[in-house]
Amino acid sequence: MSDIQKVLNFIVEIEKLKDIHRKTRPVGLDRYENSAEHSWHVCLLALMLKDTANEPVDIDRVIKMLLIHDLGEIDAGDIIIYESETAELKSKEQAGLSRIFSMLPEGQADEYLSLWLEFEGGNTADAKFAKAVDRVPPLLQNLHDEGHSWVKNNVPKEKVFALNSRIANGSKELWSTLEEKLNQAVDSGILR
Amino acid sequence: MSDIQKVLNFIVEIEKLKDIHRKTRPVGLDRYENSAEHSWHVCLLALMLKDTANEPVDIDRVIKMLLIHDLGEIDAGDIIIYESETAELKSKEQAGLSRIFSMLPEGQADEYLSLWLEFEGGNTADAKFAKAVDRVPPLLQNLHDEGHSWVKNNVPKEKVFALNSRIANGSKELWSTLEEKLNQAVDSGILR
Repeated sequence: MSDIQKVLNFIVEIEKLKDIHRKTRPVGLDRYENSAEHSWHVCLLALMLKDTANEPVDIDRVIKMLLIHDLGEIDAGDIIIYESETAELKSKEQAGLSRIFSMLPEGQADEYLSLWLEFEGGNTADAKFAKAVDRVPPLLQNLHDEGHSWVKNNVPKEKVFALNSRIANGSKELWSTLEEKLNQAVDSGILR
Repeated sequence: MSDIQKVLNFIVEIEKLKDIHRKTRPVGLDRYENSAEHSWHVCLLALMLKDTANEPVDIDRVIKMLLIHDLGEIDAGDIIIYESETAELKSKEQAGLSRIFSMLPEGQADEYLSLWLEFEGGNTADAKFAKAVDRVPPLLQNLHDEGHSWVKNNVPKEKVFALNSRIANGSKELWSTLEEKLNQAVDSGILR
């Protein structure tokens, strides 16, 4: 099989990410978001916010991380962040990613798998910023949707603040803006 | 308003792209594709096919072009490529892009508008490749969907070949693979 044909098969396979549904709804829409459109959204958010990162980042690597960061969900499904992300789940995602990347021409799989592992590890400047950005859209979506997924999944405010305060690992400035919005949501009763 | 707040408003505004529907359906799904998930899809396709471009490309610029290439549709809507893309429509898209980018912190609007104009112009190596890649998913989707949008919109094979042969401007190798698939679709009666 030619390299181009391998990539075209890969591109058809990852269509499945458009059918993985998340727990929040895009602002203004009456349906759940899928992980493909979410991936696009966070790439643009990262690009526009790159100068707010705590440490200098290579935005092109950050964007690549975000383009692939959810591909493991094709086999493992989407799990709300407020459920604990178990080792078993992560291993299922990694196996799924390996399967999908193995469809690519030789030599490419390792590169993207290692980028995903860096993202998951969350230890480099690029990964810290990518992970911070990844958490932002669901917050905005809940804030514009009367706390839809918080209410529906019984997520208390303590958990929302605790988990999302990790945004500060990537951008203190960004977390500070969002923390203020979450405090307003507590005041207005959306977040309890 | 702080720069971060401006970006967050922009990010909420572009949620609307998730509600702009295209004319083809993702492979295996019984609904139309939206332009946000399509934008994600073509970014990955460009990344995986970058070495097939006729001329060397800066893949990071190509990806940025593809992340923003459809934002003008928020105000102008999606038009099937087989309808002529009128100057009026393009000017409506450009006005829409200007409006959306004007939400960003000062200095950013010009950069992204000029990237979009380069994409639309289709004259640089990066733009030629980005435009070529942009045409691929609808072809794959139709090939896996019994020619759904070709049949529904009465698009004859001559038009499909004529318009998509422009893929060769970005990658001759890619067009050659797709041309073969389209010929098979003619043989099997999917494309008439």
